[in-house]
Amino acid sequence: MYEAYWRAMGDRCSLTISGSDAMSYLSNPKGTCWFLLPELEKSIRRIHGLVGNAAAEAEDGCYIVVGTGSTQLVNAALYALCPRDQPEPTSVVCAAPYYSCYQEVVELLQSKLYKWEGDAHKFNKDEPFIEIVTTPNNPDGSIREPVVNRPNGKVVYDLAYYWPHFTPITHQADYDIMLFTFSKCSGHAGSRIGWAIVKDKEVAAKMTKFVEVISIGVSKDSQLRAAKILGTICDDCQTLGTNTKSENFFNHARRLMTERWEKLHEAVKRSESFSLPKYPKNYCRFSDEFFETHPAFAWLKCNDKVKDCESLLKAHKILARSGSRFGADPAYVRLSLLGREEVFNIFLERLSTIKIGISNGNGHHI
Amino acid sequence: MYEAYWRAMGDRCSLTISGSDAMSYLSNPKGTCWFLLPELEKSIRRIHGLVGNAAAEAEDGCYIVVGTGSTQLVNAALYALCPRDQPEPTSVVCAAPYYSCYQEVVELLQSKLYKWEGDAHKFNKDEPFIEIVTTPNNPDGSIREPVVNRPNGKVVYDLAYYWPHFTPITHQADYDIMLFTFSKCSGHAGSRIGWAIVKDKEVAAKMTKFVEVISIGVSKDSQLRAAKILGTICDDCQTLGTNTKSENFFNHARRLMTERWEKLHEAVKRSESFSLPKYPKNYCRFSDEFFETHPAFAWLKCNDKVKDCESLLKAHKILARSGSRFGADPAYVRLSLLGREEVFNIFLERLSTIKIGISNGNGHHI
Repeated sequence: MYEAYWRAMGDRCSLTISGSDAMSYLSNPKGTCWFLLPELEKSIRRIHGLVGNAAAEAEDGCYIVVGTGSTQLVNAALYALCPRDQPEPTSVVCAAPYYSCYQEVVELLQSKLYKWEGDAHKFNKDEPFIEIVTTPNNPDGSIREPVVNRPNGKVVYDLAYYWPHFTPITHQADYDIMLFTFSKCSGHAGSRIGWAIVKDKEVAAKMTKFVEVISIGVSKDSQLRAAKILGTICDDCQTLGTNTKSENFFNHARRLMTERWEKLHEAVKRSESFSLPKYPKNYCRFSDEFFETHPAFAWLKCNDKVKDCESLLKAHKILARSGSRFGADPAYVRLSLLGREEVFNIFLERLSTIKIGISNGNGHHI
Repeated sequence: MYEAYWRAMGDRCSLTISGSDAMSYLSNPKGTCWFLLPELEKSIRRIHGLVGNAAAEAEDGCYIVVGTGSTQLVNAALYALCPRDQPEPTSVVCAAPYYSCYQEVVELLQSKLYKWEGDAHKFNKDEPFIEIVTTPNNPDGSIREPVVNRPNGKVVYDLAYYWPHFTPITHQADYDIMLFTFSKCSGHAGSRIGWAIVKDKEVAAKMTKFVEVISIGVSKDSQLRAAKILGTICDDCQTLGTNTKSENFFNHARRLMTERWEKLHEAVKRSESFSLPKYPKNYCRFSDEFFETHPAFAWLKCNDKVKDCESLLKAHKILARSGSRFGADPAYVRLSLLGREEVFNIFLERLSTIKIGISNGNGHHI
């Protein structure tokens, strides 16, 4: 979706790595995260300072841990937060609908450290727990806070989508563990760069240890690239201003997201078979404007006659992930809105022609 | 150690990535390993074909799985080989002295799938097990075969050091699971690229699933870089020949390793306090010469008067990892020989002056 933007940047975002660059395992031997390149750390702290979405300055008293995508850091956070000497595994919960990968991560190795307990709304045990709060949420784009609020709990904030192209930046997040990813910030999923902002030094050190044992650090080539691209976004935010007509990355991307959501609403209206969540309008501190959340995913609900929305869409050649994968009703599906322009337009065309309750060509109701 | 070689290659090994390159998660949607870039797969199969160290052609009936370093693939192999429905965790063993990280990997998350059982020589249970065979071995450089040889066992071959700069290529390895890493092949540890050559499609698919859940794939930037550098090594092996005076990477690197080992033997001789293992001389099919193994690490033993070699060396400002970390006697240490030239020379100077049994300046025997 953002490929054309980055193509138009030409050489400004190109990275050249010579055969003798970045050969060592080590990046910052004395740092808490010894494999984090100082130039990436600088770009990360800088972009959060400019956007205002998270407290990430060194003087905020926090540490940066880099990971192979934020997915690796979800794993690392669970490892760091679960004590090794407990008789029972620590419960991990997330309010439904929740990102389907959390459950996969928790259950992958049948760890004795933690176990998946599903929907946070249903958790009522007097035991230690970890709640993952994704805000804006994947899959439904809702703005969230912790829901368990019991003693002995720890919260991991997955803020992958808390950037001004997806949602108004209403406040500076300042939590114990916050996860972000290059993938959702700028669209560079292939680089697999994520980062955690961590208040407690010991937790940061344990997360670092996890990444060390699992993969002995994180690609330096991708760290260099992320440092450069995030740095260029920052440069443009500063020189192009945040509310003028010249577009920095976030304003450009927000315009694209807004257009896609307008088109999606039109297609849904034409079809008369689906509904979409409503999102609040809020003031964004970064862009100095009021606007609605425009999530990276559509959380689409079929009307009452259809129980399995994924199958319905599949019959119309639309790939979507069933609500059941997210701990929700299969009348819902999650649809990615971040694909290439031509793919998005074909999807809209197909979606707008689906009429539930009207006989199809075979004489069956679909 | 190899930095100067790669610097001398100039632009031939430089990689330029524009801002719009390699943005997607996907590399090869229809491949068994969907995040493996086809150009990297091609370079991997090609270099093994040229070197003759492993059967890795598609017609050999094998699959390539890429990982964030081969460390991630050790994790992935254990996940893929341990059934989920067993009452007891599968035992993981390795003949001592063994690479210290295996134990850390196995014990990291207290998985119910597998458990660390230590020295393979001591394993005599009638239970399913996985034996990791590292050859040439880390830490001691020995050439190895499986030692358990009981029913219900599976073997993972860690062949990180089975390249012609470290050891003669005596045969084409052709095992069920073989692990390699860019780090030890060319020295590019910072890129975190490893690969597995896997015979069974289902095992390859499970390893892919592990990497998917843990980190949603592997940095494309580093995959592109590894593809280019391995490709250049191949080009030079073909155009420069393998036994002429013009040096391809492996011949160059072998010369450096040979020189370092000669200097190390001299220093050890001068000191009269240590001993080193002896290595066999063998015919190398790649370079068409007879030579000794020149391991990446020295497995140094203090003479009988010293019980803790690591502490002795530390007192002389030499960093080494104690034999106890490798399931062996602390009279041994592992020393890396792959550092920069100036670091290596300082190390030799310090080592050669250590005299055990001779009073030091404080009147104490050391």
